[in-house]
Amino acid sequence: MDYRFLLAGEGSKRQSRQRRLYGNLRSAIVSGRLASEHRLPSSRELAEQLGIARNSVVYAFEQLRVEGYLSTSRRGTQVAAAAAASVDRLRRSRLNIVVSKRVRGLSRRERPRDDALPFSPGVPALEDFPLQEWHAVLRRSAAKIRARHLGYGEAQGNEELRRAISDRLRAARALRCSHEQIFITNGTQSTLDLLARSIADPGERVWMEAPGYTGARAAFLAAGLEVEAVEVDEAGFDPEKTRRLGKPRFIYLTPSHQYPLGSVLSLQRRMELINLAWELNALILEDDYDSDFRFGGEPLPALQGLVEEAPVIYLGTFSKTMFPGLRLGYVVVPPAAVETIATIYANLDRHGRQHEQTALASFISEGRYTRHLSRMRKLYRERQHALRLALAARLPEMTVDGAEAGLHLVLRLPPGCDDVDLARRARAQRLNPAPLSEYGDGGKSRRCGLVLGYGNLDVSGVEAAVRTLAQLVLRALR
Amino acid sequence: MDYRFLLAGEGSKRQSRQRRLYGNLRSAIVSGRLASEHRLPSSRELAEQLGIARNSVVYAFEQLRVEGYLSTSRRGTQVAAAAAASVDRLRRSRLNIVVSKRVRGLSRRERPRDDALPFSPGVPALEDFPLQEWHAVLRRSAAKIRARHLGYGEAQGNEELRRAISDRLRAARALRCSHEQIFITNGTQSTLDLLARSIADPGERVWMEAPGYTGARAAFLAAGLEVEAVEVDEAGFDPEKTRRLGKPRFIYLTPSHQYPLGSVLSLQRRMELINLAWELNALILEDDYDSDFRFGGEPLPALQGLVEEAPVIYLGTFSKTMFPGLRLGYVVVPPAAVETIATIYANLDRHGRQHEQTALASFISEGRYTRHLSRMRKLYRERQHALRLALAARLPEMTVDGAEAGLHLVLRLPPGCDDVDLARRARAQRLNPAPLSEYGDGGKSRRCGLVLGYGNLDVSGVEAAVRTLAQLVLRALR
Repeated sequence: MDYRFLLAGEGSKRQSRQRRLYGNLRSAIVSGRLASEHRLPSSRELAEQLGIARNSVVYAFEQLRVEGYLSTSRRGTQVAAAAAASVDRLRRSRLNIVVSKRVRGLSRRERPRDDALPFSPGVPALEDFPLQEWHAVLRRSAAKIRARHLGYGEAQGNEELRRAISDRLRAARALRCSHEQIFITNGTQSTLDLLARSIADPGERVWMEAPGYTGARAAFLAAGLEVEAVEVDEAGFDPEKTRRLGKPRFIYLTPSHQYPLGSVLSLQRRMELINLAWELNALILEDDYDSDFRFGGEPLPALQGLVEEAPVIYLGTFSKTMFPGLRLGYVVVPPAAVETIATIYANLDRHGRQHEQTALASFISEGRYTRHLSRMRKLYRERQHALRLALAARLPEMTVDGAEAGLHLVLRLPPGCDDVDLARRARAQRLNPAPLSEYGDGGKSRRCGLVLGYGNLDVSGVEAAVRTLAQLVLRALR
Repeated sequence: MDYRFLLAGEGSKRQSRQRRLYGNLRSAIVSGRLASEHRLPSSRELAEQLGIARNSVVYAFEQLRVEGYLSTSRRGTQVAAAAAASVDRLRRSRLNIVVSKRVRGLSRRERPRDDALPFSPGVPALEDFPLQEWHAVLRRSAAKIRARHLGYGEAQGNEELRRAISDRLRAARALRCSHEQIFITNGTQSTLDLLARSIADPGERVWMEAPGYTGARAAFLAAGLEVEAVEVDEAGFDPEKTRRLGKPRFIYLTPSHQYPLGSVLSLQRRMELINLAWELNALILEDDYDSDFRFGGEPLPALQGLVEEAPVIYLGTFSKTMFPGLRLGYVVVPPAAVETIATIYANLDRHGRQHEQTALASFISEGRYTRHLSRMRKLYRERQHALRLALAARLPEMTVDGAEAGLHLVLRLPPGCDDVDLARRARAQRLNPAPLSEYGDGGKSRRCGLVLGYGNLDVSGVEAAVRTLAQLVLRALR
């Protein structure tokens, strides 16, 4: 038999020939080209035929013997019976991957993640992030990194960073917290995932706003929870509307700036919610995703700080205030829950990233973060203003929702309007608004509209983007 | 009434006085110190009494009015009825956080994460990681980062990195894959979390090795899956032992180097497993956590590459080969599953970290990674050798398990020995071995022993560490 096919492939150095022989021999066995119990020539004969060193053949035989592809006996080296016997059956089967029921409700759309397109929701002003300054802080932080910082580190995250965050939250958001209640996370999505699995069992209920944050809904569904959508009104989440709903484990909401409609939850409703949570032994998940960008007056204080030991877990993120790709966020848990959550984190998550965490701590404590925020606040105010003006000029009949805050506005469309189709058409024109109906819970919220992010949209580009959008909208409504 | 308590606190600048007034007034309302409908003096009167600018009072009143704490009428400014009315009830309740049933089985221990202690399992040689070189690559990668790289980026992760990984996996681990089958992850733990939730429903079964990787068990339990522990024998996972078990969704195992016992799965068992997975429509999760550190001969090729379209999801991590705190890993999924998994990732995970991913891609493609690995392989071989010698000298009667591979050995103890207590005593002596019984599934694996990591243990420290350990062991066995 001619074995020269065993040297097929590239490379002429001894080592690569040796590896090629090994790989080709293995493939020949697995593919059935060399049948079960096929007797191979001796290593000396094969080396001669192939014109290579005998050691290379010995090496390949020995390796394949160890792996079970070849067997040796007094009669020489042969293809192992087990190896080839199984191959036949293997080739007959077919792979079938089934998605779990719990995630079947998730959106199938593959939204183009082109953050640079006008109207992309939730994207901050990437061009205006002080990248050089951040990289300088990262470099300085690198100089402080030692071997001992390369491990997993504390489950709660870097203490310096937690202190910087708690100082800020107490001053700027009126939270009642110490750094000991803070856990550094990979961002809100992973925090919600973790909480949903570790404090709720499959089948338990969560109330959430409709329309609301789809990422939260995905996390709850993936944890096997039942999501009860509570339709928001002009003032946000209405505790009165929950009377007929089953008892929840969590109440998820965005009180500072309802996502995506923009209302601010009144004090009265906040009080009612806290009472309700206590009554039902539920936990409020307060997602404070963009409260640092409030243009009119002081930002409203957080629900978490309203009373001592509020039944509130507070979620924050640096995705909007720094940049999304940083993947750092945090969660503030009630003192009574710290130990429980720490154990769960230690079991279910791995930490580290001391380099980035230390850099972020410096960025905050050196005042760079506050400076950056105030620059961005000014910028977003201008951008929102320009967008409102352009929408009022081009679509004067239509309602625009949104507070003096955040990174997006909502253009409301008449009920029955196909906002999904409209968003698709917009994408064909290189615009990236999100259809409001996709923020609902299936049939629950039938509101139509377009969520228009302006965080990453320079004022100079607003006019052209709105002109194109207005044409599409007017055509769709005709 | 004397309102001077409203200025309590530090800071003399106008702005900080204004904020203090606002904060103290709010606290006084929430705490009930100022009762519901309490009438406040006019802004002019209050400013006079406090000796501050009237504007500061106006500002505080207006902000608290917007927030719902104060109300104004012709009669002046007073504490809102709703605000104080609720406070009474609020103070009566108590917070109660309940851990979900599914995670109640997780380990309660808070293992000290002191990676520097001798015998810490799974910790690579942190002192020997080329930190300067890595930081230089990071700096060069920073120079290439632009604003557009700050967003979430592709759900699959940086393409350059995926190409570098797939090239390596094909050559070094005989995988059948292209970069299109690869997803960059935050590490094995998050990959298992995601797969468990998105391809399996609560109540579905997973077979896994006992003893086995506790992190995997935690992920499966947290997803509501039922874990069936399959006791491994000298040759690892035995497909024969699964005959009486219910049909699984996943089969989780570590074929290249059974964790923690160290055996290598034979070719015959690999074939049987693939057949079994196809028969049962199950997916094999192949965790190849430390196969790059094999000291005898070539590393064994992966299960994933054994046949075309094997029903295998392959999990890899940079935690051992680079450092744990990097938080980067990857998963290779069958071509047929790419689209499904991409949708799930897009819904349930957020990406980014282009800076680190680009740097890692350069680190690999410039040959630095391979060089580092071969240095580490040599180092770990020496460390394992030194540890074996010291154990043989101090505890000659005892069995030590572990292949010529990896970062740990297992010191076997007689059945019934309390390895948890022994590990606790060792920690009191600044040693950090892990009790083997904790790697089992509750009662399933009753094997006792100590998992001894040597990755981060310099040869010079082996003798002293083993001496202390041997004393503890001999005392425990007496």
